[in-house]
This record gives sequence, structure tokens and C-alpha cells, in this order.
Amino acid sequence: MPSPTETIIHKRDGGRLTASEIQAVVRGYLAGEWADYQMSAFLMAALFCGLDRAETKALTQAMLHSGSVLKLASVRRPKIDKHSTGGVGDKISLCLAPLVAAAGIASPMIAGRGLGHTGGTLDKLEAIPGYRVMLDARRFERVVREVGASIIGQSPKIAPADRRIYALRDVTGTVESIPLIVASILSKKLAAGSDGLVLDVKVGRGAFMRDRRAARELARALVRTARDAGLPTVALITDMNTPIGRTVGNALETREAIEVLRGHGPADTRELTLLLGAEMLLLAKRAKTAHSARSLLEQRLADGSALAIFAQMVRAHGGDARVVDDLDVLPRARFREPIVAPKSGVVVDCDPRELGFVAIELGAGRRQASDHVDPAAGIELVRVVGERVKRGEPMAYLHASKRALITQSAARTAAAFRIGPRAPKRRLVLERIVR
Amino acid sequence: MPSPTETIIHKRDGGRLTASEIQAVVRGYLAGEWADYQMSAFLMAALFCGLDRAETKALTQAMLHSGSVLKLASVRRPKIDKHSTGGVGDKISLCLAPLVAAAGIASPMIAGRGLGHTGGTLDKLEAIPGYRVMLDARRFERVVREVGASIIGQSPKIAPADRRIYALRDVTGTVESIPLIVASILSKKLAAGSDGLVLDVKVGRGAFMRDRRAARELARALVRTARDAGLPTVALITDMNTPIGRTVGNALETREAIEVLRGHGPADTRELTLLLGAEMLLLAKRAKTAHSARSLLEQRLADGSALAIFAQMVRAHGGDARVVDDLDVLPRARFREPIVAPKSGVVVDCDPRELGFVAIELGAGRRQASDHVDPAAGIELVRVVGERVKRGEPMAYLHASKRALITQSAARTAAAFRIGPRAPKRRLVLERIVR
Repeated sequence: MPSPTETIIHKRDGGRLTASEIQAVVRGYLAGEWADYQMSAFLMAALFCGLDRAETKALTQAMLHSGSVLKLASVRRPKIDKHSTGGVGDKISLCLAPLVAAAGIASPMIAGRGLGHTGGTLDKLEAIPGYRVMLDARRFERVVREVGASIIGQSPKIAPADRRIYALRDVTGTVESIPLIVASILSKKLAAGSDGLVLDVKVGRGAFMRDRRAARELARALVRTARDAGLPTVALITDMNTPIGRTVGNALETREAIEVLRGHGPADTRELTLLLGAEMLLLAKRAKTAHSARSLLEQRLADGSALAIFAQMVRAHGGDARVVDDLDVLPRARFREPIVAPKSGVVVDCDPRELGFVAIELGAGRRQASDHVDPAAGIELVRVVGERVKRGEPMAYLHASKRALITQSAARTAAAFRIGPRAPKRRLVLERIVR
Repeated sequence: MPSPTETIIHKRDGGRLTASEIQAVVRGYLAGEWADYQMSAFLMAALFCGLDRAETKALTQAMLHSGSVLKLASVRRPKIDKHSTGGVGDKISLCLAPLVAAAGIASPMIAGRGLGHTGGTLDKLEAIPGYRVMLDARRFERVVREVGASIIGQSPKIAPADRRIYALRDVTGTVESIPLIVASILSKKLAAGSDGLVLDVKVGRGAFMRDRRAARELARALVRTARDAGLPTVALITDMNTPIGRTVGNALETREAIEVLRGHGPADTRELTLLLGAEMLLLAKRAKTAHSARSLLEQRLADGSALAIFAQMVRAHGGDARVVDDLDVLPRARFREPIVAPKSGVVVDCDPRELGFVAIELGAGRRQASDHVDPAAGIELVRVVGERVKRGEPMAYLHASKRALITQSAARTAAAFRIGPRAPKRRLVLERIVR
């Protein structure tokens, strides 16, 4: 097997690595034969030269098999996972997992923490008093089997190579490589033991992929690599040029998710949940058409069964399930202050990236991995894109534990809104990628 | 100042760093604010995106000023340095430093060890019993002042940033970047306190630069950056498709250098010494034309004054100066075995890279930095390119401390020679680069 330096040079000069060479990189790194400084040089060379389809597959497999792979053999229903590449106000997983479980499929999800300006599903669930995101593999399997839905954090046993490589990429400017992103996402998704995967690839100012072409390239690489690994996968490319729904921040988003499960909630949050849920049912062959899938899901929202499963899931994770009936179970910030419109008109723009950073400043996210998250902090959007507002009326409320945090974020929040004569029409789903 | 990660991303995305940003990279690395894995990612990004003229200048200056800079203020004569990018059989510095000193200029040289398949001037000098390559700065200045020539090793105080960065590049596939090579060479050369620099940029199979275009690019970048830093510099691009002279290996090469200083020696070794020496005299304004410079140097070889200065330099370094009169002072290998010609004809090719590796196998060089060097080991070339050989006659002798070392290298040595009907004419100097 070539030495680390030889392998780096081979990739740097545009060479193609065999599957066993890529396996040697990952294994060698975990075994300490590759130093961090060699791995980071290799990752930078891979960022510049790319990894082809076979290399990406090999890297994904090597990272997957660096840890344990769940089987969930005792779960009889089709198991469909969903993954979002990360957005602002993206609480869809919280609505989606119980909803599709109510429609007869199982939804084992391994979710993440907030990253950069985007929130994380685990932080949102932890806003529910008592909710434990870490379950061991047996307990996870039992919840998926008995409840149909479980959302947990990534155990250190899942894809440990990804964990170490991701931490290195984060501080060496090697995050923005499509094959590396693909291998990182899929090594974890393949470890979760599901039979199918629906991807929500976000594009726009609030997403990691800013332009449509890059998002499409990422979606295609994800679908192709997942299918190469034997996991049927569909991706929707969805708009992230404005936040999803009307809340940004953990408890606020959990509240919104429960409202959707009650059959209400913002139209876009509900719509995205239904669209992604329909894809999950189609993958699971629980519906023949998108139309029938949607009808089934709408019924499960209307009859309260999705909400009931959410309550069961919360209880199974040790959380206070009364939250589904009483939103006051969720923590509430001490201060709530309005941001008012500087003029009358229509909200034509609302920058999700800026609001993501405001939410972090208010305490809803982390600047560093060790930061404490305030579950109650965040942003309530009173007016969203397309809605009329009058001068002096609130466009948003900021929630925080200290008034000073709100004061320092007020101008930035106001600047994230643009008021004009007429808003452009928003398309929620831009593209559907199946191969 | 941007964080290490931000700086890496800026360069990775094709950005241009300011001088103070580059200074922050080098200082931050030495201060431990940049981790090795961030530096290696940065170096790989720089390898792909390049560094422009101003960035290369800034990197050179930052590495230079990471350590002490010699002034050699007490040396009255013009001080001209010479640097070779490394070849096989390249013992030119040993002849050149005393020769130009005999012609009235001072030659303070900081030389290196063998690297890859190429030999190092320090290893060659150390073949002389007692020769100490490490002198402190004061002693070095005194030798340069009193003798006119001194060749020493790089003290840890000279360009420590280069030392650390080079060690990292060596194991992360980031050696082959022209701006990084330029900054590495010149940060050391600028620290030596000379008034001018002559560069021997080698090109061909035995050199680090294999093709003419890359060599020209390197030579131009070196000359430009040195001049930007206020150091008048000229580069000769010279042929490295066959070894220089008739010896490869430390004591053998020192012997050949002394023969040249005695007025004999192989024609190409002598010629290259005269050509580079003439450039040094021209830079020092000790001669008006290349022709008069050459005449002066030929005279200094003929009258024995260059040899006398070599003896003084050896003595000043603690070495056994009797070597100039008695070559048996040099160590001699226990075994000396011929490699015979497989057929009659003319030597049309002699692969310097292969012979460089054979010399290492015989013990003349290092595979790892900690390896011991056998000063007596090496290759004596009985026939060089252009010379006739008869079947069964020796083409070369291998010198080693164990017969087994010779046996295992015999086939590789023989294969390095090609015998044919007629040899191509060799041009020693391919180009002269002045800006």
C-alpha cells in the first residue's frame, strides 16, 4: 500500500484512488498511521481534484464501516429516513417523523446539532423538558418498532471516521467539497438501518449551497452514491431564501411543529412536511401516487394520530408528553420585544442567513461547540414574505433571556427584512432528483 | 486578522493575501496558533492556487525574519553566494567557493544535506576527517573575512520557519510548488548576508525540475523574488540528464573537486565551475566581461591559489588540510567492484536519477533523516556519455563497505547506462536568466 505522502501526491496530481487505497486512508487515519496534517492535505487535494463516483462510494463505505451499522431487524414496517442539508427555521423532521409513522411506515432518524447559522433538530427536541436524544441502539430499535418514529443523536459508535474527519474539515477549509459532503452525510445515513432515504437539499442564501447548480450537483451525487450503496433515495431541492415557517429558535420551532401536527401551523411548514412525507410513502410503496400519499398524510394530521405518535415518541425519550396539549410546557424567554416595520408595504424579502445569525446571538445556537444553548431564545416572525405590514407594526418578536441581547440584535433583525410594493411568488420545491 | 480557517478558505478560493496576512500565517505557525493540519491545508491550497509575486516576496520575508539574519559587516570584499537546486554528482560548491575567493571575492555559503536522490555539499565536506560544518555566526564571519570562503550548515537560528514548514511539506505532498520552493531557498539565502547570488537551476531526469518550462519558471521566480528583496541574482539553467563529472558519493566527489582545484578533473566539472564562477565575478563587478572573468579564474586554478584557499578553509573548519596534497586522507571503501559493459559502443545515456538512488543504496545517502552516511561509498564512472567502451570493460566501479551492497546494486547500475552507436552532443548551460 502506498505511504500517506504518496497517496496525497497521487490525488494531488489528479490520480484516481482504488477502493482499497481509500479504505487505507480512512483506516490509517483512525489507526494513527496518517497524521492530522496529512489528512488535511489529502482533503484539500480531494477538494481541488474531486473524487469520482467510485471513489466517493469507497469513501462513504470506509467511513460507514469505521463504526457500527444498525440493522433494526425487528422493525417490520418499511423504514424510511429523511435528511435535510440544513436551513433556517427547518423544524420539518419534528413534524415528519410522527406523521409518516402514523401513515404506517417507520422513521428512524439520526439527527444533528446546529451548524453555522442553521439550527439542529436535536436542540429543538431538547427544548421539551426531559427529552433525551441519546438512546442506545437497543432502545432506539424498540422505540422505532413500538412507536414508529424516533429521532436520536449520533452515537460515538456511528461512523467515528466521519466524526474525526468532519472536525478536521471544519478547521481546515475543506468543508465545501461535494464528494466529501456526500460521504459524510451518507456514511451516517447508511448506518441508521433504513430501507430508503428522502433528502431535502436546500438552496439559497440560508443554505450551505447558495446556487442552484451546486445544489443540483450535490443532490445528484447524494442520490447516486446512496443508490450505489443499495439505499433507494430521492432528493427534493427546496428553497432556502427565506426562513421556513414563522419561527427560528428551539422551543419556538418545536411549538410550530406541534401546531402543524395539530392540523394548523404555517402553510409552508405544513406543505414541506406533506411533500417530503409523500416522497417517503412512495419510497416505502405505501402509496401508489403522490396524490394518494398526500391524502393519507392530510388525514393523519386531521385525525390527530400524527400528534398522538409525537406524544408517544416524546414519552419514549423521557420527555414531557403533555407538551402536545399544553405548549406552556415549553420554556419561554424572559424577554420578548417587537421589531417594528419602518414603513408600510409588503414584505418582499427576509434574509434567512441573517436571521440565523441573530438567533445565535440571542442564545439559540452555538458559536463554539462548547457553548450552552438557550432553548427559549429565538425569533417569532409576525410577517413573512408576501404579507402586508403597516409602519410601526411588529414584523417580528425577539425572545431572549436578557434585554441587552435583544437590543444588540434589533437593527440586524430589521435589516433582514425588505419592504416593497410586491413580493415575488415563492416556489417551495425547485426540483426533484431521482438519479 | 482573519482566523487560520478563514485564511485557508481565502487562498483556497483563489484570493490574494496581503503581506501582513502572510506574516500572520508564518508567525502564527511558529507561535502555535496555526496547527500543523491547518498549515498543511494552507500549503496544499497554495500549491493549487499559486502565490503571486507580492505574496511570494512576503512569504520569503516572513520566513527570513523568523530567524537571525547575518550581516558579515566586517567582510570588506563583495560577498557572492551560489546555490544549486540539486543534482547528482554536483560537487561544484567545493571547487567554486575557494576559486572565487582566490579571485578576490568572498564566498559565504550555507549549504545543505542530501535530499531525495541528490547529494548534499555538507555530506561531501564531512568526508574530510575533522571538517566541522557547524560554525557559530562569529566564527563563520571570521573565516569568510580571513580565508574568503566558508561553507557551513544551516544553524537552527537561520529561518526556523522554513525548517518547520519544509519538514511539513516533505510529508504532505506540498514540495512541488514553485512559490513555496522559491520562498524556502531565498529565505535561507537572504539570511546569509551576501551581496549577490548565482543560481544553478538544474533541469532533467536527475533534477527536481524535469522539464525546461518548469525550470525556467522556477529560475525566473527565484531571480525576480531575490531582486524584489534587494539581492542581485543571476540564474543559469544547466543540464542534469547525466551526472556531473565522474563521481557520485561523498569522499569520491570531494576527491574530484580537489582534482579540479589542482587544475585537472573532468571537463564538465571544471567547465561548470568556471561558468558559475564567472557569473559570480560579474555580479561582484570584479570582471567586466565573462571572458576576462574566466581568464582570471583559469589563472587561479593554474597558479594553485584556489587550492591553497581550499586548504585554508578546511583548516579553519577543523579539517585535515593535508587532503589537498594527499587524497589518501579521504576514507576509502573496503570494496570496489567493476560494472562491465554488456556490449561495445558509445555511452549514449547515463541516468543520473538511477545512479543517485544506487549511491544511496551503497550507503552514500539517507533514506530517512536519521540514517548514517558512509562517506566512502559511491560510484566512480569510468566511462561517461560520449565515450567509447568495449564489451567486458568496466563502465563504472561501485564503492561500498559490504560486498552485498554492491551485488544488489550491480544490475541497477548497469541498467542506468545505454550503449549505442553515437551520443548526442551535450549542452551544459541551457539558458541564462537575469530577470
